[in-house]
Amino acid sequence: MSTTDCSLQLIGVVRSPLRSLDDAPKQGDEGGAAAWLEIEDRFAGAVRGLAAGDAILVLTWLHQADRAVLEVHPRGDRTRPLTGVFATRSPDRPNPIGLHQVTVLGIDASGRLHVHPLEAIDGTPIVDIKPVLSRTADR
Amino acid sequence: MSTTDCSLQLIGVVRSPLRSLDDAPKQGDEGGAAAWLEIEDRFAGAVRGLAAGDAILVLTWLHQADRAVLEVHPRGDRTRPLTGVFATRSPDRPNPIGLHQVTVLGIDASGRLHVHPLEAIDGTPIVDIKPVLSRTADR
Repeated sequence: MSTTDCSLQLIGVVRSPLRSLDDAPKQGDEGGAAAWLEIEDRFAGAVRGLAAGDAILVLTWLHQADRAVLEVHPRGDRTRPLTGVFATRSPDRPNPIGLHQVTVLGIDASGRLHVHPLEAIDGTPIVDIKPVLSRTADR
Repeated sequence: MSTTDCSLQLIGVVRSPLRSLDDAPKQGDEGGAAAWLEIEDRFAGAVRGLAAGDAILVLTWLHQADRAVLEVHPRGDRTRPLTGVFATRSPDRPNPIGLHQVTVLGIDASGRLHVHPLEAIDGTPIVDIKPVLSRTADR
């Protein structure tokens, strides 16, 4: 078996002032923007319970990634040795799932989540949201 | 658009003494097992650079999950109010991607990664591996 039977469902989309990969930092804490997570209406129930101040992980589908890449020079620095993509955060990888830790700034009347800081560009598909685990929080 | 054009590729499989969901804890730090990550030969290059002691995130496809569930009683406790799955770590969710932080114990001659602690059951498909980010580590 080389492919699972799954197709990821789009649960929403990122709306961000970052319009292209040239605008985007490598990681959210290196200059990510405040952005909106527009969740599809049919998944509105899955958002219930999230609130301003929550630390969440946003899983995205990095739709501009090259899925054939197995090794990269870390952070594009060609003086550094080729390294397997599973040992890096390269977006180019067999399954280009992006993982972004952000804080919920607020939720508007239509259920959009305002979050910060997010390095994903405008239009990036969202595939999952999870709370950051802590010893005291609900799991 | 309700489905992206992606099919997740299986990059490997979990080999664990945990055989069923009844054996598995909710989170790895609640009694997860030492387990092996068997990576498919064609992705061997993507593992290069990982070493014993590394903290990694293993992304899995929770193949026994119910993708129609949008709200749950957290941790199955029916005295707690129904909560959107994006505010919980429920495996039942629209895209059942598991996220597991483990430490690499070692890598054997055939490239299998020995890791601990992992709550995913034997046979769980692996879809990605990422290093845990730190301020000092490579990204």
